[in-house]
Amino acid sequence: MPFTELSHLPSKEIVPGFEGRFIHTDHVTLAYWDIKSGSILPEHSHVNEQISHILEGRFELTIEGETQIVEAGKVAVIPAHANHSAKALTDCKALDVFYPARDDYRSVG
Amino acid sequence: MPFTELSHLPSKEIVPGFEGRFIHTDHVTLAYWDIKSGSILPEHSHVNEQISHILEGRFELTIEGETQIVEAGKVAVIPAHANHSAKALTDCKALDVFYPARDDYRSVG
Repeated sequence: MPFTELSHLPSKEIVPGFEGRFIHTDHVTLAYWDIKSGSILPEHSHVNEQISHILEGRFELTIEGETQIVEAGKVAVIPAHANHSAKALTDCKALDVFYPARDDYRSVG
Repeated sequence: MPFTELSHLPSKEIVPGFEGRFIHTDHVTLAYWDIKSGSILPEHSHVNEQISHILEGRFELTIEGETQIVEAGKVAVIPAHANHSAKALTDCKALDVFYPARDDYRSVG
């Protein structure tokens, strides 16, 4: 079944205020996030390279010490092992691509 | 420079009516498409696995003989080597994730 309705996917609050829905292939994870205003993603890093795209809202994103306010139309590339953190300045919708797939999220759906 | 404004990326008409902008990492390509109503993507396949997400519009997508009308909120997974084709029923905006990266698109930007 190659077609999926996003709203039918189970969601999980991975970090307080960050509700995620996930599509996994063998190699890639596509994550859809509903993020509550004021939510904070503490600094972390992971082996996965990541492309982050804000669809709605204002999101303060710091990658290896460089901070920008990211809004619709802006995309950030987070290399493997790069430290990053974030704060949602408003309610946000965002989309992340991870390679390799986030096997730690596979249990969600 | 991890942050990119999508509108600043060069675009290229890859197939008639399909204007693409591309973000490449070592392993993944994220493609943003502006598609004109009536444009046709002839049946093809490629080694890259693909996740397609329609952001706006109505898009008729056929994957290995299964056809669905895809609109905002629907996502399709196209396995490596799977035959697929499409027709834009309206103007559309869409986003594709490819793994491995589409090296054939790297010359665009």
